[in-house]
Amino acid sequence: MTRNLPDDSVGLVTPDRLHFDQPLALDCGKSLPQYDLVYETYGRLNAARSNAILICHALSGDHHAAGYHSPEDRKPGWWDNCIGPGKPIDTDRFFVVCPHNLGGCKGSTGPASIDPDTGRYYGPDFPVVTVRDWVNSQARLADALGIEQWAAVAGGSLGAMQAMQWAIDYPDRLRHALVIAAAPKLSAQNIAFNEIARQAIMSDPDFHDGRYREHETSPRRGLALARMLGHVTYLSEASMRAKFGRELREGNLSFGYDVEFQVESYLRYQGHSFVDRFDANTYLLMTKALDYFDPAQRYGNDLAAAFRHSTSRFLVISFTSDWRFSPARSREIVSALMEADRRVSYAEIASDLGHDDFLMPIPDYVRTLGAYLDRVAKETEGEH
Amino acid sequence: MTRNLPDDSVGLVTPDRLHFDQPLALDCGKSLPQYDLVYETYGRLNAARSNAILICHALSGDHHAAGYHSPEDRKPGWWDNCIGPGKPIDTDRFFVVCPHNLGGCKGSTGPASIDPDTGRYYGPDFPVVTVRDWVNSQARLADALGIEQWAAVAGGSLGAMQAMQWAIDYPDRLRHALVIAAAPKLSAQNIAFNEIARQAIMSDPDFHDGRYREHETSPRRGLALARMLGHVTYLSEASMRAKFGRELREGNLSFGYDVEFQVESYLRYQGHSFVDRFDANTYLLMTKALDYFDPAQRYGNDLAAAFRHSTSRFLVISFTSDWRFSPARSREIVSALMEADRRVSYAEIASDLGHDDFLMPIPDYVRTLGAYLDRVAKETEGEH
Repeated sequence: MTRNLPDDSVGLVTPDRLHFDQPLALDCGKSLPQYDLVYETYGRLNAARSNAILICHALSGDHHAAGYHSPEDRKPGWWDNCIGPGKPIDTDRFFVVCPHNLGGCKGSTGPASIDPDTGRYYGPDFPVVTVRDWVNSQARLADALGIEQWAAVAGGSLGAMQAMQWAIDYPDRLRHALVIAAAPKLSAQNIAFNEIARQAIMSDPDFHDGRYREHETSPRRGLALARMLGHVTYLSEASMRAKFGRELREGNLSFGYDVEFQVESYLRYQGHSFVDRFDANTYLLMTKALDYFDPAQRYGNDLAAAFRHSTSRFLVISFTSDWRFSPARSREIVSALMEADRRVSYAEIASDLGHDDFLMPIPDYVRTLGAYLDRVAKETEGEH
Repeated sequence: MTRNLPDDSVGLVTPDRLHFDQPLALDCGKSLPQYDLVYETYGRLNAARSNAILICHALSGDHHAAGYHSPEDRKPGWWDNCIGPGKPIDTDRFFVVCPHNLGGCKGSTGPASIDPDTGRYYGPDFPVVTVRDWVNSQARLADALGIEQWAAVAGGSLGAMQAMQWAIDYPDRLRHALVIAAAPKLSAQNIAFNEIARQAIMSDPDFHDGRYREHETSPRRGLALARMLGHVTYLSEASMRAKFGRELREGNLSFGYDVEFQVESYLRYQGHSFVDRFDANTYLLMTKALDYFDPAQRYGNDLAAAFRHSTSRFLVISFTSDWRFSPARSREIVSALMEADRRVSYAEIASDLGHDDFLMPIPDYVRTLGAYLDRVAKETEGEH
């Protein structure tokens, strides 16, 4: 049964694909001789090519940020709350580009792709890519699309890290960086959770050193555990309390190890539904990209020194209930930007749900994003 | 090579064992027809039998709370910082009893014991025991030792939950309850972490539905993951930062999945050393006992109503850096005690390390415990 799509949706979208045959040098020292990037676009590029916004996705995200692939889709793209006609990232005014990152498992070249040199799956041989590598690959995509300068580069979480890296590495190629629910680098605790997730995957006997596809299996148990653990860190304690409390699924204790509390049922569902749509090697790569992100490191561990290379303006947004990348971590970014004498707006949004709030339609958040991007749009339109 | 034991140590200790052949009715509806409890004692019971303190252990603890089993022991018992001559739990004044709980894996009857009815390991057939069940079994131990009333029942974390349950279920049998680093019940987030730990164990192919001993194996990967995860929740973010930061083990990034950051090395060590000394079925049981603990539940979910059954005085201690059971959770206990018009002292100790601080020799903590127990000792000595 089909249905009418909402009026403020970008509607039906089809991903695009570009093949790149110039080798891409990577941080790890290797290079990718050739690769594909899939991406989606919404809205129309203006004649001056000045109204493009790059959207960078987070750990489990992809290029499908808004709209529907088919009228039967149960859910729209992951940031549909914020992208569409009349929405903060207004597709009546902006041309929006959302690529799928290298190393992913939804179409761009990654561990689940065939290595043309060997004819077998890349699997564990796919190089560990970094946020810088992604930004370099996105710059080539911009070249291919004829976009010399983004009106803005935006993202939440790992996506926000890409926005920061863009501002540092390609200062002339963006006017605004929108850095949402981020940290300047991971804490030891963040790395510890990622490491446990990786251990869960790699210690699954079905992992086969990453060659599970060739064994026609996949480390489902390990990946489910990794996802469950991720989920607990995305949700706030308060939201888990509000959503589940200590409610029992069957009303009374079973004195056994089947699902009892509602929160257990939710976690198992989250874990097990994830393994059908995600690749374990990609999960490993994405967590490593998070762990490695540390733009200050090349600048004597001085984040302000790193930001002195940027020329864009910044909007930094954090969420009060986010304990994965708390407001304190966003304020470190803001402080470094101020120390570097960059223009920065900062909003700390009162929220309940935790890290995932960056995906939610929280009125204050949507208004903040909308007001900022309205100015960006006017600036862009005023130029011509 | 042997060495001299410290002067303030209880010295060399030998565990005791008692066999109980009266069936113990359990919360789950089953009963244990017979069982053993191992325990250690330090100090001497006075003639009036009024100077006994019961120490209750936490998730991975046991009966070896103080002293050394042999002069070669690298480490003393788990609460040696606080138990010994001249220490807060002063063995020159108190007779200290620390039992190993039912369901454990260090000597008391548990999943790793032989079920006398079947001649095989209990394994997964060992009933899920609760904090109330433990308290009932400890009351029988008190009977056997001729201790009608404890001067105090004390514990940290899951141990503190036993102290609370004692105060509610056996009000006449203790004069003081020492409730350290506790919560009145687990939050959804606490349960979620426990559930992921259980899933890690139960999804390990070597788990064999809990019958791994009969398969001459054990779910080492799952248990190691469970322990790593537990560890992250025991440590504060600040202490992990101070201890590990983002320090690399080899000095530079490897772009691979071996240990890189110091925190990863630490976690893997913690996980893998644990599996040699702990039983997976016991880990499952202990986390369930934590999840189930909710003394208010039998009193219309009114914790104050539960505490109205108690007659003892209370010392409640929390640690500022504990995010597993934060000071806010301890204050819930204090509020309920005040509402119930019970006598309670509360100390919030400035600390750095997180939940594990209850095991640490933090001067303010040790002084608080010492001052409180000095009054308890004087009270006890003054009676006679």
